[in-house]
Amino acid sequence: MTATVHRLNPHGTPSLDPLMALVAQDLNLVNSVILDRMQSQIPLIPELAGHLIAGGGKRLRPMLTLASAKLLGYEGTRHHKLAASVEFIHTATLLHDDVVDGSDLRRGRRTANIIWGNPASVLVGDFLFSRSFELMVEDGSLKVLKILSEASAIIAEGEVNQLTAARRIDIGEERYLEIIGAKTAALFAAACRIAAVVAERDQSEEMALDAYGRNLGIAFQLVDDAIDYVSDAGTMGKDAGDDFREGKMTLPVILAYARGNDDARAFWKEAVAGRRISDDDFMHAVALVRDSRAVDDTLARARHYGQRAIDAIGGFADGAAKRAMIEAVEFAVARAY
Amino acid sequence: MTATVHRLNPHGTPSLDPLMALVAQDLNLVNSVILDRMQSQIPLIPELAGHLIAGGGKRLRPMLTLASAKLLGYEGTRHHKLAASVEFIHTATLLHDDVVDGSDLRRGRRTANIIWGNPASVLVGDFLFSRSFELMVEDGSLKVLKILSEASAIIAEGEVNQLTAARRIDIGEERYLEIIGAKTAALFAAACRIAAVVAERDQSEEMALDAYGRNLGIAFQLVDDAIDYVSDAGTMGKDAGDDFREGKMTLPVILAYARGNDDARAFWKEAVAGRRISDDDFMHAVALVRDSRAVDDTLARARHYGQRAIDAIGGFADGAAKRAMIEAVEFAVARAY
Repeated sequence: MTATVHRLNPHGTPSLDPLMALVAQDLNLVNSVILDRMQSQIPLIPELAGHLIAGGGKRLRPMLTLASAKLLGYEGTRHHKLAASVEFIHTATLLHDDVVDGSDLRRGRRTANIIWGNPASVLVGDFLFSRSFELMVEDGSLKVLKILSEASAIIAEGEVNQLTAARRIDIGEERYLEIIGAKTAALFAAACRIAAVVAERDQSEEMALDAYGRNLGIAFQLVDDAIDYVSDAGTMGKDAGDDFREGKMTLPVILAYARGNDDARAFWKEAVAGRRISDDDFMHAVALVRDSRAVDDTLARARHYGQRAIDAIGGFADGAAKRAMIEAVEFAVARAY
Repeated sequence: MTATVHRLNPHGTPSLDPLMALVAQDLNLVNSVILDRMQSQIPLIPELAGHLIAGGGKRLRPMLTLASAKLLGYEGTRHHKLAASVEFIHTATLLHDDVVDGSDLRRGRRTANIIWGNPASVLVGDFLFSRSFELMVEDGSLKVLKILSEASAIIAEGEVNQLTAARRIDIGEERYLEIIGAKTAALFAAACRIAAVVAERDQSEEMALDAYGRNLGIAFQLVDDAIDYVSDAGTMGKDAGDDFREGKMTLPVILAYARGNDDARAFWKEAVAGRRISDDDFMHAVALVRDSRAVDDTLARARHYGQRAIDAIGGFADGAAKRAMIEAVEFAVARAY
């Protein structure tokens, strides 16, 4: 092995292409599992689930399971079902999220709760959740079951934590990081970690992949939250200003509030309370966030976690898998540049 | 209040002087409490405790309690006893640490365990620990008792965690951060937080000070760990290479190992196992750490936590206390430049 110092390069134009190329064949098999297992004799279930599952998601989490398995040189097939299981957990949480938030759009399309109503969305979420456990049980690893059931509990805790933090101007950065660590990063971490379990690697490799996924997840979410205050063409299929109009407490707001003068703070309090949601209000918010360098520093935080993700897999052998996983991190943090 | 965007300035020459000036009067009173309460009819106790307490420590933790109280405009005196209590907890852990590590030097002087033996050091540590709780009980706040007893338990857990991670080349950055979060940052956090309790501030101000202390503590420890591989005049009264010779797993080693080639990894394994501790070995370690940019990136991580510390107190009114607390962070991260 040669010496390899991988430091985050914020100035390239990284993409997810190498990651997608790396796992393309495996991902086809995972997609077959997904399509097969979302079937049911109740037509509403595949209809509703399919609306979201076919609706333009990147399959990032199952791709991470597949890429991690490649990194470890795993040559079996157990990870196909488990990657599908991870995607089902993710889809279930999206369905429930949209109900909780009362969202009407996701990735530019109407949400399931708007089309079929809240009860159907909740129940199909539960169905997918159960299917994800069926897939794990078929695989038969108690260790994988433990990792993914713990991650699911943590996601739910994170959602509740976020709910109690909603529209609270004073939550602070640490609480915010706790929330995104639970609701976003925990599943990224588990998706990567289970590859080490099926490949029968030791605890330190398991935890290295866990750390890669966790830090990547945090970086992704931070950049996502920054994008809401910069771009107007939704990079993640999300429109700028969505978070703002929902009074969501994200790091750009937390920093802009902490750094703002009395006028700025009064504005943020009103905005987070839902009393400032016009386009002009949003333009004012963007200006405050920019002048306080809150977006710059949210992105700087993202780069910190991105570098940690890259360093976490530093110990694995170089090759296409490692390069693709590093570029995925660079893609995650470069999206807002 | 005016708009204030405090971003970490890594290029100045910050010092702890403003912090020391801010709390000088209060610190004299805290020192009186410390001297008074370390007395005992058993002469060995003040003799041994005094050796460490008078031995050149900066009193950083009690200063943080005092500065935080100033930041909140607290005008009472309860924090003097509590700041002494914090310093006693810290001193007790140092005494026990030196026994556990078998250290013979601290801040350039022989350690208490070398002069008086391990049993005496352990017991005087216990004595100081009990005295710290006596001081809290005299103050009478159950909330302060809870915060400091929890912090003490976390410190002990962190020490045990470190013990089980000792000489293990594969612990990884996340485990390392867990350890320093517990053994260093938890007491920094509690020291700041209790000021908000005595000043009867709400939960969000408590947690803002907690976050300031916690992030500052992590930044301090990261820079400390970096310094071991750069300076040869011990900036913290510690000589370069101490960590190396003890086979301590710190972030520079974790990054240099993860980023190293086969030769470098073989070297680090031998070194951490204690089979490479000559001066030449240390020079080789310094070169590996430098070439892999492990020190650079340890310091970059420190700046991330430093910025978070500064942002955590962004919401408090500007003034001498806030400026001194910001400069303390800048001092912490600038020490290795």
